[in-house]
Amino acid sequence: MCLMGFSLMAEENLLPTPDKAGGKPVMEALSQRKSVRNFSAQELTEQQLSDILWAAMGQNRADGKLTAPSCRNFQEIRLFVFDKNGVSQYLPATHTLKPVAKGDYRNLVAAGQDFVNAAPVSLVMIADMTKFGNVDERAKMMAAVDAGIVSENISVACAGLGMATVPRATMQSDEILKLLCLTANHIAILNNPVGFEAK
Amino acid sequence: MCLMGFSLMAEENLLPTPDKAGGKPVMEALSQRKSVRNFSAQELTEQQLSDILWAAMGQNRADGKLTAPSCRNFQEIRLFVFDKNGVSQYLPATHTLKPVAKGDYRNLVAAGQDFVNAAPVSLVMIADMTKFGNVDERAKMMAAVDAGIVSENISVACAGLGMATVPRATMQSDEILKLLCLTANHIAILNNPVGFEAK
Repeated sequence: MCLMGFSLMAEENLLPTPDKAGGKPVMEALSQRKSVRNFSAQELTEQQLSDILWAAMGQNRADGKLTAPSCRNFQEIRLFVFDKNGVSQYLPATHTLKPVAKGDYRNLVAAGQDFVNAAPVSLVMIADMTKFGNVDERAKMMAAVDAGIVSENISVACAGLGMATVPRATMQSDEILKLLCLTANHIAILNNPVGFEAK
Repeated sequence: MCLMGFSLMAEENLLPTPDKAGGKPVMEALSQRKSVRNFSAQELTEQQLSDILWAAMGQNRADGKLTAPSCRNFQEIRLFVFDKNGVSQYLPATHTLKPVAKGDYRNLVAAGQDFVNAAPVSLVMIADMTKFGNVDERAKMMAAVDAGIVSENISVACAGLGMATVPRATMQSDEILKLLCLTANHIAILNNPVGFEAK
């Protein structure tokens, strides 16, 4: 499945230019930051998806640095978008989505928590541990710190842009890594379902 | 030193009411998020310190939940303020600072990186691992995620409020835990020096 997925769908899709100026004031966004687990059926627009991915770990400087700081600027967190049509990887350097699997695999993120399947997208943070010399406990903690940083950018941006999310560690990590052909030297650390709160 | 510190300085100091509405728009703050290591001599006002601590992990809801989500809402991250006069713990429930040590211990945070001593305050994130049942590798990774989340709130708020910071894992962790009488079941995970960028 891996090789087929990559060979059939190698073309990257350019996302709309992200909004780098809008949203609520940062302190108001923080005052409204909360974990939401009841999602409505409303889909994200392409623009909203673009904005939230750029907020998470987009390039915000000409030298290639990101909105999300990382351990020694390793940029080891890889961000994947799971929606009803498939799975794509977000590539900050080009602000594109690279399709990596066809089909609805949000259930692997849900891992039995049904509310996740109701969110239009789930963003999954996977650490590429090859960036660290030794994959010891400290390296894993640093990767976890960096995943938390990306996740909080998503949470704060959602709060500031009227979207809803919750950070989760629960997911079928082994199955997700297999699906994405990342079984060697990768750790699935966190995910954020993203959508809109059901009223 | 521990017992003396706690007994002499048990009184908590109420911080000014934090600004829960201001700052740059959240996407502009993220576009300006960067790691700063050259600090000017400018001090933070009480209001600025209050704002950045509340942004980091202040209570933003009546039920006691925080701006920073945490694993199963354990709220296991303890946030300490190191400045030229001493060390205090930030208590979100009361938005107060509780003095825990007298004296300038910023050098323990700097751990040889002199630029840290130039920042007026350093915020240190220490995980109380007693909140987890088993202190195994997964628990440590979850605590690291939660420290990353608090740290990124600091980074984004600094970007949105005109302050400067950088997340660091380097510090004299053992000496800091001894100073704070936290040698049992605590891990010093991250710190953020906070101040203003030297021009």
